[in-house]
Amino acid sequence: MPASKVSAVAASALAARYAAVRDRTVALTEPLSAEDCCVQSMPDASPAKWHLGHTTWFFETFILERHENGFKPFAEAFRILFNSYYNGIGEKHPRPQRGLLTRPSLSRVLDYRRNVDARMERLLSHAAPAAVRELTVLGLNHEQQHQELILTDIKHLFSLNPLQPAYVDAAIEDSATPAALAWHDFDGGVAAIGHAGEGFRYDNETPRHQVLLAPYQLASRLVTNGEYRDFIAAGGYADPRFWLADGWDWLAAQGRRQPCYWREGASGAAEFTLHGAVPLDPHRPVVHVCYYEADAFARWAGARLPTEAEWEHAAAPQPIGGHFSDSRQFHPSATSAAGLAQLYGDAWEWTQSSYAPYPGFRPADGVVGEYNAKFMVNQYVLRGGSCATPADHMRASYRNFFPAAACWQFSGIRLARDLMGRG
Amino acid sequence: MPASKVSAVAASALAARYAAVRDRTVALTEPLSAEDCCVQSMPDASPAKWHLGHTTWFFETFILERHENGFKPFAEAFRILFNSYYNGIGEKHPRPQRGLLTRPSLSRVLDYRRNVDARMERLLSHAAPAAVRELTVLGLNHEQQHQELILTDIKHLFSLNPLQPAYVDAAIEDSATPAALAWHDFDGGVAAIGHAGEGFRYDNETPRHQVLLAPYQLASRLVTNGEYRDFIAAGGYADPRFWLADGWDWLAAQGRRQPCYWREGASGAAEFTLHGAVPLDPHRPVVHVCYYEADAFARWAGARLPTEAEWEHAAAPQPIGGHFSDSRQFHPSATSAAGLAQLYGDAWEWTQSSYAPYPGFRPADGVVGEYNAKFMVNQYVLRGGSCATPADHMRASYRNFFPAAACWQFSGIRLARDLMGRG
Amino acid sequence: MPASKVSAVAASALAARYAAVRDRTVALTEPLSAEDCCVQSMPDASPAKWHLGHTTWFFETFILERHENGFKPFAEAFRILFNSYYNGIGEKHPRPQRGLLTRPSLSRVLDYRRNVDARMERLLSHAAPAAVRELTVLGLNHEQQHQELILTDIKHLFSLNPLQPAYVDAAIEDSATPAALAWHDFDGGVAAIGHAGEGFRYDNETPRHQVLLAPYQLASRLVTNGEYRDFIAAGGYADPRFWLADGWDWLAAQGRRQPCYWREGASGAAEFTLHGAVPLDPHRPVVHVCYYEADAFARWAGARLPTEAEWEHAAAPQPIGGHFSDSRQFHPSATSAAGLAQLYGDAWEWTQSSYAPYPGFRPADGVVGEYNAKFMVNQYVLRGGSCATPADHMRASYRNFFPAAACWQFSGIRLARDLMGRG
Amino acid sequence: MPASKVSAVAASALAARYAAVRDRTVALTEPLSAEDCCVQSMPDASPAKWHLGHTTWFFETFILERHENGFKPFAEAFRILFNSYYNGIGEKHPRPQRGLLTRPSLSRVLDYRRNVDARMERLLSHAAPAAVRELTVLGLNHEQQHQELILTDIKHLFSLNPLQPAYVDAAIEDSATPAALAWHDFDGGVAAIGHAGEGFRYDNETPRHQVLLAPYQLASRLVTNGEYRDFIAAGGYADPRFWLADGWDWLAAQGRRQPCYWREGASGAAEFTLHGAVPLDPHRPVVHVCYYEADAFARWAGARLPTEAEWEHAAAPQPIGGHFSDSRQFHPSATSAAGLAQLYGDAWEWTQSSYAPYPGFRPADGVVGEYNAKFMVNQYVLRGGSCATPADHMRASYRNFFPAAACWQFSGIRLARDLMGRG
Repeated sequence: MPASKVSAVAASALAARYAAVRDRTVALTEPLSAEDCCVQSMPDASPAKWHLGHTTWFFETFILERHENGFKPFAEAFRILFNSYYNGIGEKHPRPQRGLLTRPSLSRVLDYRRNVDARMERLLSHAAPAAVRELTVLGLNHEQQHQELILTDIKHLFSLNPLQPAYVDAAIEDSATPAALAWHDFDGGVAAIGHAGEGFRYDNETPRHQVLLAPYQLASRLVTNGEYRDFIAAGGYADPRFWLADGWDWLAAQGRRQPCYWREGASGAAEFTLHGAVPLDPHRPVVHVCYYEADAFARWAGARLPTEAEWEHAAAPQPIGGHFSDSRQFHPSATSAAGLAQLYGDAWEWTQSSYAPYPGFRPADGVVGEYNAKFMVNQYVLRGGSCATPADHMRASYRNFFPAAACWQFSGIRLARDLMGRG
Repeated sequence: MPASKVSAVAASALAARYAAVRDRTVALTEPLSAEDCCVQSMPDASPAKWHLGHTTWFFETFILERHENGFKPFAEAFRILFNSYYNGIGEKHPRPQRGLLTRPSLSRVLDYRRNVDARMERLLSHAAPAAVRELTVLGLNHEQQHQELILTDIKHLFSLNPLQPAYVDAAIEDSATPAALAWHDFDGGVAAIGHAGEGFRYDNETPRHQVLLAPYQLASRLVTNGEYRDFIAAGGYADPRFWLADGWDWLAAQGRRQPCYWREGASGAAEFTLHGAVPLDPHRPVVHVCYYEADAFARWAGARLPTEAEWEHAAAPQPIGGHFSDSRQFHPSATSAAGLAQLYGDAWEWTQSSYAPYPGFRPADGVVGEYNAKFMVNQYVLRGGSCATPADHMRASYRNFFPAAACWQFSGIRLARDLMGRG
Repeated sequence: MPASKVSAVAASALAARYAAVRDRTVALTEPLSAEDCCVQSMPDASPAKWHLGHTTWFFETFILERHENGFKPFAEAFRILFNSYYNGIGEKHPRPQRGLLTRPSLSRVLDYRRNVDARMERLLSHAAPAAVRELTVLGLNHEQQHQELILTDIKHLFSLNPLQPAYVDAAIEDSATPAALAWHDFDGGVAAIGHAGEGFRYDNETPRHQVLLAPYQLASRLVTNGEYRDFIAAGGYADPRFWLADGWDWLAAQGRRQPCYWREGASGAAEFTLHGAVPLDPHRPVVHVCYYEADAFARWAGARLPTEAEWEHAAAPQPIGGHFSDSRQFHPSATSAAGLAQLYGDAWEWTQSSYAPYPGFRPADGVVGEYNAKFMVNQYVLRGGSCATPADHMRASYRNFFPAAACWQFSGIRLARDLMGRG
Repeated sequence: MPASKVSAVAASALAARYAAVRDRTVALTEPLSAEDCCVQSMPDASPAKWHLGHTTWFFETFILERHENGFKPFAEAFRILFNSYYNGIGEKHPRPQRGLLTRPSLSRVLDYRRNVDARMERLLSHAAPAAVRELTVLGLNHEQQHQELILTDIKHLFSLNPLQPAYVDAAIEDSATPAALAWHDFDGGVAAIGHAGEGFRYDNETPRHQVLLAPYQLASRLVTNGEYRDFIAAGGYADPRFWLADGWDWLAAQGRRQPCYWREGASGAAEFTLHGAVPLDPHRPVVHVCYYEADAFARWAGARLPTEAEWEHAAAPQPIGGHFSDSRQFHPSATSAAGLAQLYGDAWEWTQSSYAPYPGFRPADGVVGEYNAKFMVNQYVLRGGSCATPADHMRASYRNFFPAAACWQFSGIRLARDLMGRG
């Protein structure tokens, strides 16, 4: 676990935050039936019920078990059922079989949550030791990550249902007309990236360190559906020159001709969203593209994906605002804002950076050290958060990561270019 | 559909039978939550909700659509969702994805059942044409097959849950001590098999025809767990001499060392049942063995599996009694009965007969002709019904069939031998 | 091993036959390079070099090891490398890796053959015991089976080579115009099938036993390419009504739209043969169809495949003549013969009979008992031999068998029909 | 193609170099039979015959076709058969089926080589344009890469043969005793990496650019078999703390407990080499470890893998000497040299750097632009060359790359550490 400095957070503030985050998770499952919460649509995705149980298991295992007097687990079996990948903790239920767990029922898992919440409240109500406070903050950040996964995993499940159900009934708001794409110049030079200061951060954001950047340009906003449709219309999916070799093989194996949630509807192109299937809006950012698609689009557009250092250097001075999950509109919007827009929220932005340790990186001690470090291979970094991310979960140094073929996240594209003759 | 003679059945009797069979299906799902009913544990098995919908679709599609005035489907989408394999009917939802259908909800599928039941009642209440009556009888037999699958499919799902849930809370009754295994002689000669008479039968039981049987012996009862354990203890799973080549490969690929629902428990050998995990009872019939295991056991025992003609010739004179699903004890019992016992109920009996058309066989006309004929390859015939079969669904000429590797049905072993020097 | 009666064969005749069969095998590989002999094109097929070694291993292991004074194996490693599937003999090299054996070289395997042949000659030159004579006859029949496989396996390998090489340079002779298809009637009744008399037979042809046949008709000749092309043109590959369910899935998985060696050539339809790619000749028998295709064609034609008993009952009275591999034209010809033609040679004829033990069947004692019995599941019987079979290897009771999806053998179609109102 | 400056190379020198490199390739196949040269042991590896043809195809396609008067291909079919991955060139034979090409024969491919060599000689004999000279140099470097693959691919093939054949009969020389492992310090700061100067380089080595390095240490030599055995003995393959999550899954899937060419011999631990199976020598460098194994070892040793920039910064000042394939001992040796040893030759050194474009990278124009850029995903960089690399093929800026699970190359481990409190 990161040695974050959370001592400044008053006990009552932490308890309040605990309650707010935990309630938010349950609120996200309210549009769902017990059946919706139980099924697993692919090995990469987990049932909502499992997310509800696993986030609870995290608090019970890493905090209550060590710091509660007379600790007794709520249910012995849950210790294995809701362990995700912490090999150091012992046995775990196989990931691809999470969807077979019709028992425990959703209602029993909600009991589990209430039980652990009551015990956590007690623990947080009197002066909790720093270790408890720090682990609680970690647990809440962990839970926020699963809030996002609840949304993306249910979207994947519903996308495979011929009824194409909507997660929320509310219609998507009309979209703004995006500003024309402009290029913002950065001089490069020695820059510092990584987390600085007092607030919470994951271990993978540290240590803050210096990097050397060549002069570069970043696009002013995300690539839109309309721009991506132009790429398709220009034969982008049929021309190997634009594709990484692995991506070209992936295209062939999947028979993919467009982003995974685009649909051919009776009345024209449509897009499957958490608000149901809607006409494809050319103004909104393209999302659910994988790394191969993002990279191919960039190549076709005569540009490239940014590195994560370029992105962070540009984003760090900007205020963290944008379209996050708090809006309860679970689909990205177009922006007409001028300047360097949409850096935060709307869509995770693929970078060309392989997920790797920062120079001098040390994983957190103990089993929570399994949180990040062991995934540092064959994954690519995404930055900025999405419309499924809680706003207070985001920061400039935040590193998300997924394999190159992953497309069930709200992942989009911001272009970059080398800036010649400068620097 | 078979040109069965159901005209004798009075309209009111048919309506009553319709209601009874349909109610029984719903009753079988009462111990299950909506979550239990939604999940698919493997491509071969279907969710209980799907069984509930598909059996209803059968009546709506094959009867109401053709015979109801002003027919309108309950829900257009269900026509694809609940089509199983009738290629002649049009598109169908892919079998391995039946478990992704969290929508429609269980409650909506129960609405579907009620709606179709009310319409079927109306149709059956006045003098329905022969075609309706015949298709109704077929639909009810079809539904009874799915009643059995509801039980075997939920058993498979629960078997994969680390909580090892019980389908019913009631304990299994104590088992009798089985009579010693005896051999019953049959002279062979020309015999007739296949369905005769007026009642319902599937097309695959016809035409009744003559076969030539060599003299043979049948064991007096099913092979027990204890006898099967002796086979294992004697190294049966490690000696290729007992196994068909395909079976030997299957063993290796599965890492199988015992029947699929046997368990090593903390307090000795156990068996997973619909009543939960129970100590392995050496007296009860061994069940959930596949064809390869049944054949290997027989070879080890110096015997063989019967042909389906041998079985039917022996079983036809016997009254159809035994331990069926009506008992609500969903696991086979030992029998202390003398004579040729357990032919019906308790466990389906593997025969050595490949599932093939009888000489002169003609499939039923129309799409219901897809019911049986197209499965006549790479499957083996089982006879007699099981503890999961409704009693009034069974008859001597009934032909069940599964691939050689299938073990999630209540399939057991009755031995046969050649009877030399006679005939 | 079958308890065949070979005592009448004079020692010198046996030695001569040994030499003839063994030489024939090597002669079959003469058009092939060492490279051609080394490669394995799929797990079902074996390299010619492996066939050369394995047939030699058979004599060394089952005869020399038991009957040669001072036996010492030619090479210890060959005992594992060239064991095919005899689990009773010990370890074996994995079947799918036979093509990795670039060592031993072809020339070393030919040395092995010469060495074993010299030792066998010595053994056969003086009065060999009956066991040796019987096993030698079995070994020669075994070798003849592998002669056929050498041809079909090299055909499969060459079919995958973009150069489409010919195994023999000689052109195929012009084809006769086939007689119109006629139906031959058989009254049915009790008939005897299985091997009778003194000559060699495999254990699976025994015991000769009585079967009861309903009246039936057999087509006068094999189905032709032209007739099969009509089936395709009529949409046969796109209409599920003609296909077994497994076959329909197989079609989809393979993307198959025509028999596996048919080609679209620049100048029209072509067929890949051992004489190279040639224009598709509508008069020749269709070959390399699998069971699913044979069955679907028959259904489309309003007919069915014969049972093996029907086939043998019709074929037994006929002289064993026809187009065998001795002709060195390795592709079936059309026949203009009247009567029940082409029963032997040209193409193996799929029957609808699952490969199963005859009533009263007992496998041969010892490891050669693994020869046949253990394959009696999930395979279908073919009868009559093909243009790749040695003429003196064939007889009416001969049972060949392959899985339903196999199409790399010279397998064709003879139609049958029920004969109603007779018998 | 890289815009390399090869104009200084005199025409005669280039022709001589062409002859030398081309001859060397054929010489490498001399210990091999035609059978050895034909077989493909896995999709990642290619037959030696294919390497011989493909390197020739490169010259014919990229040089002769564009620059030879009256160009006519040696054989039309070879244009597809020997295309590797150049999608821009048109169709290509599927990679996993390269081993099915028993035709063309080895002897015909050698004819192809002689034919192209004669034509290339003519082209190079008079003043060839710069484009020809540059492409020729590229083609020779390409050929040297395939020389290395000929060795590693035949090693893989032979490793799967139960006879464990040796590629060369000559015994491996006795090994020196390695010097104790020491750490060499580097101050870090801004450094330049990438190719500088006039000689040949691939496009992926450019542009030369500045990087910022933190202070670090490099181990003085490669990790030895003995050191790696200590890791295994300490339970390294059973402890998830040392492994990347993907690596841990890979271990389980492969059942891997030691490097892929280590063997349990009758007389103790052995290692399969191109000189046959030899006793495991604790002094020699460990080779044929994949990235996961290299990374896990480093973690266990309290160190890490170097970045490619760290490696190049340390290696660039060193002379390029070491144990290369020119020695004809095709296995790495221990070194007793003091200082920073074994940077070049012996074994490719895994770095922790994902294979990515350098800042400002531009692929070569035209189809040879497919040479490198499109592989820049999911691969890791290796540096320094191995005992299978030609000495004159190596340089400090050379970037080799393989997926994390690849272990059939001569890949080894050099450790690195952060240097704290300096810089």
